[in-house]
Amino acid sequence: MPSPTTVSLDTLDAADDETFVAALADIYEHSPWVAEAVAAARPFGTLAALHDAMAAAVRAAGAERQRALLAAHPDLAGKAARAGALTAESTAEQASAGLDRLSDEEFAAFHRLNTAYRDRFGIPFIVCVRRHTKASILRQFERRLANDPTQEHATALDEVIRIAALRLDQRVAAADRLPLAGRLSTHVLDTHGGTPAAGIPLALYELSGDGARRLIVRAVTNRDGRTDQPLIGGRPVPIGLYELVFEVGAYFAGRGVTLADPPFIDQVPIRFAVGEAEGHYHVPLLVTPWSYATYRGS
Amino acid sequence: MPSPTTVSLDTLDAADDETFVAALADIYEHSPWVAEAVAAARPFGTLAALHDAMAAAVRAAGAERQRALLAAHPDLAGKAARAGALTAESTAEQASAGLDRLSDEEFAAFHRLNTAYRDRFGIPFIVCVRRHTKASILRQFERRLANDPTQEHATALDEVIRIAALRLDQRVAAADRLPLAGRLSTHVLDTHGGTPAAGIPLALYELSGDGARRLIVRAVTNRDGRTDQPLIGGRPVPIGLYELVFEVGAYFAGRGVTLADPPFIDQVPIRFAVGEAEGHYHVPLLVTPWSYATYRGS
Amino acid sequence: MPSPTTVSLDTLDAADDETFVAALADIYEHSPWVAEAVAAARPFGTLAALHDAMAAAVRAAGAERQRALLAAHPDLAGKAARAGALTAESTAEQASAGLDRLSDEEFAAFHRLNTAYRDRFGIPFIVCVRRHTKASILRQFERRLANDPTQEHATALDEVIRIAALRLDQRVAAADRLPLAGRLSTHVLDTHGGTPAAGIPLALYELSGDGARRLIVRAVTNRDGRTDQPLIGGRPVPIGLYELVFEVGAYFAGRGVTLADPPFIDQVPIRFAVGEAEGHYHVPLLVTPWSYATYRGS
Amino acid sequence: MPSPTTVSLDTLDAADDETFVAALADIYEHSPWVAEAVAAARPFGTLAALHDAMAAAVRAAGAERQRALLAAHPDLAGKAARAGALTAESTAEQASAGLDRLSDEEFAAFHRLNTAYRDRFGIPFIVCVRRHTKASILRQFERRLANDPTQEHATALDEVIRIAALRLDQRVAAADRLPLAGRLSTHVLDTHGGTPAAGIPLALYELSGDGARRLIVRAVTNRDGRTDQPLIGGRPVPIGLYELVFEVGAYFAGRGVTLADPPFIDQVPIRFAVGEAEGHYHVPLLVTPWSYATYRGS
Repeated sequence: MPSPTTVSLDTLDAADDETFVAALADIYEHSPWVAEAVAAARPFGTLAALHDAMAAAVRAAGAERQRALLAAHPDLAGKAARAGALTAESTAEQASAGLDRLSDEEFAAFHRLNTAYRDRFGIPFIVCVRRHTKASILRQFERRLANDPTQEHATALDEVIRIAALRLDQRVAAADRLPLAGRLSTHVLDTHGGTPAAGIPLALYELSGDGARRLIVRAVTNRDGRTDQPLIGGRPVPIGLYELVFEVGAYFAGRGVTLADPPFIDQVPIRFAVGEAEGHYHVPLLVTPWSYATYRGS
Repeated sequence: MPSPTTVSLDTLDAADDETFVAALADIYEHSPWVAEAVAAARPFGTLAALHDAMAAAVRAAGAERQRALLAAHPDLAGKAARAGALTAESTAEQASAGLDRLSDEEFAAFHRLNTAYRDRFGIPFIVCVRRHTKASILRQFERRLANDPTQEHATALDEVIRIAALRLDQRVAAADRLPLAGRLSTHVLDTHGGTPAAGIPLALYELSGDGARRLIVRAVTNRDGRTDQPLIGGRPVPIGLYELVFEVGAYFAGRGVTLADPPFIDQVPIRFAVGEAEGHYHVPLLVTPWSYATYRGS
Repeated sequence: MPSPTTVSLDTLDAADDETFVAALADIYEHSPWVAEAVAAARPFGTLAALHDAMAAAVRAAGAERQRALLAAHPDLAGKAARAGALTAESTAEQASAGLDRLSDEEFAAFHRLNTAYRDRFGIPFIVCVRRHTKASILRQFERRLANDPTQEHATALDEVIRIAALRLDQRVAAADRLPLAGRLSTHVLDTHGGTPAAGIPLALYELSGDGARRLIVRAVTNRDGRTDQPLIGGRPVPIGLYELVFEVGAYFAGRGVTLADPPFIDQVPIRFAVGEAEGHYHVPLLVTPWSYATYRGS
Repeated sequence: MPSPTTVSLDTLDAADDETFVAALADIYEHSPWVAEAVAAARPFGTLAALHDAMAAAVRAAGAERQRALLAAHPDLAGKAARAGALTAESTAEQASAGLDRLSDEEFAAFHRLNTAYRDRFGIPFIVCVRRHTKASILRQFERRLANDPTQEHATALDEVIRIAALRLDQRVAAADRLPLAGRLSTHVLDTHGGTPAAGIPLALYELSGDGARRLIVRAVTNRDGRTDQPLIGGRPVPIGLYELVFEVGAYFAGRGVTLADPPFIDQVPIRFAVGEAEGHYHVPLLVTPWSYATYRGS
């Protein structure tokens, strides 16, 4: 769904320089110079061409300019966020991973890591949060603190470009889309009756390291045993740990199957991790009242 | 392991009446008359014969005596329990189902049900708690409140005899054992490597209706992918809901298998219910880094 | 792919009566009167409407005319077939089930059943052979011999209409298709590697009662672990017994997986029956070098 | 079951040298000197000690004596076998792998390989046939023809010692047994009903490279879903390709399960290979009317 500020690529390709730059000024955080650098190369024709040109401009910029671009980013879950002083994009992005709902302990952990990172690398920690859960952001933090500065400068720049790609994909309407979307789907087969299992309620949760779980989506299987929409689709699947919970006891009872009392299998939890945000994850359930199986499908 | 008060059947068969009755006075709660009624029928030779004789004496006793026997039982999770005023047997039994560790809400629920039950049937609610979890006791409570008084009197007597059987089995050492023991076991097969999965840490939890879980036992699989001891054995498997959690990610990493980061399958929870306390429940796991299956085995 | 004699429904709807009847004269065996009976009802607009009208004309015809229609059919695998004296349609239909390649024993069996059927019902045995294998035709024969004459007359008429529907679907090109097509498909998942299994050679065989097998189709799985075309599609799946054989040993060896010598699992045969010719049969294989699973999917 | 010539180790340990040597003269083919060499080392006390002593004597003998021992063996499936001129042991051993029932083509193949082997190594081809099927013997033949003479001399000696171990295990009754026995077993679980599948007829076949199959054993599952005896036990499981065929359709029909007509799953063939003759192969079947799974169990 286009946000109010969506603009078509055709319009951008035809606009004067000022309009073009204004529309894309914050694709790279507080850095309109990136849009300026590519305005003359229009028309782009495809979103991919526009994105590649902007990314190339960033990679071709000198070390100082790149450093300024990195420095322009806010701390993750930092004081600016608490104070409401972020760009609209940054606010929405940090909220997507739950960084706007941290407990005091979590806030303290982020603060400690932010400080350690700035001390070591002289820039804020940047990660494309739409590709991550809170837990995987913390894991990234720990890992990247071990990088050497040159490695880490390159990694931070890669993340900036990933952030820009997602912003561009949301901002600009074009015939093509950037290949940013992963997918998470399921399928329930009733191997007791030899049929898709229709009408199974299910819920997808994100799990945190501390055992907490956050509901992502509820759905009910349709006649083909699938959900009408993918559980996650059209966007990256945040890297992290998930649990799918299927309510199968009522389904079998409703089909008149004689069950144990209480039913041997009732609620089936499947716990799995996503490691590639752009991957396709199909997690089916084959189930009888006495057995089940799951696997990474396709 | 015999408790300090264990006595052999041979000794009981040869003892004078007084000794015999003293040893078995509280097999039926506060009711030495049951032992008295069968003392003359000695020798029994087997535990089964002794138990059958005592149960027959109870069933043959008049309605008044049976009612007195029922009335002699304490409330479940009642004030007497809180005050430490139970027999040693009742104390241990109620603890086995966690009735000595109730939250205030749970205590209030038991109190309400105890009162409703007494109001309706004029006796305390009796259930063989070693065959149940807290959740299934509450379910029994609700169900049995719907019985008519004649039905419920018979049900209560059945439970009293079940309690007596378990007490007898613990108290008296004999060549035979009463058929009271269920079994819960597991087996982990690595279908990626075609071998039993050795060294897999696992934990068995009891789940409550409110989502809380209580650790029952931890174990590690041996060379055959099994645990050295059954997870529950030599006693009833309390009717209720369980979760077995297997730690498989480290196992595969330790075998040098290339895994996703984070591993697609790491911790595997299997949720299942036990409906027959004397049943044999074998709950195996067939697992690869990308798939798993479980079923009620044998 | 339209055969040379295909004609469009638009053409038929616009043609004079004579042309219309000539084009559809043998949709019902040697019975142009059926086309004649519906010519005035044009235009039909859809294939379904044309088929329904013709079927209604057959059902509305008197007993004598229906009996003549039934009698106009050749014996299955009879002398006329051996002598090459069938209509082109009947020849192709009987060949589809292998009735043109009978052993002498099979020919004798058909002859014996044809004679018994004619003696009992006074008409030839009619079955829509494109929906059957040789084995299921023989089974139909035995079952229908047990019908009473009224039942069997109705059954034979149903089969005649099924035959007509398939002929119409092949003869007439229209925007709609009659719902005659079943589908048989497969999918191979490598649950050792967590990926679709690409490049797996497989073969589908039809099994006879006597243990013989006839190759239906060979295929190789594509990048998604599926075959580019369904194994059977766009036509009924003949009722009968099948075996799918997958060559998985070379696949795992090719991925560098250490296998037993010889590999524990190499060739995987899956034997299954089709009972609904218009059904969708999806028969996946989940496989590691040490395990596999299959099920009726969707 | 001891054969008529079985003798106890105690008897052998106590006998005079002549009796001892006579009893074990043909443990090594036509080579009583091996028994002579160890007679003075008695008493052995265990079968393992006796076997180890005899094997050590063989390995310590000079090259000439070893070569004479190897040369004393008959050709596999050779003219001597056809003419009935083998020792009783060799006759029984060759029959165990079906070498007494070769087609003319197979006889010719063995003759050609025997000749090639003798030409290359100057000794007959020796293999412990009780550990092999006909197909795996032919595969061994091809492989070992590629060895260099020193390697192959050692390999042949290893096989001679394996043959001796099996002969000794059959000939001498002792408290211990040599670790020569593999095992092949199965278990059928009905995951539709959550119970072991009792009364399932099954058959084990050995498959040849040319597609032929030879029945090894038939059995019916007992109340626990297992067979009363292992399918192969107490002896090596011949290296080769097998098929287990389970008749499950009648089982589900007998339990009153509504099945497709014909049943989707009726006869289940499981094809697998044995690579370690002393291995334990457990090949279970988890089955519903619509799905099944198998794996190498333990």
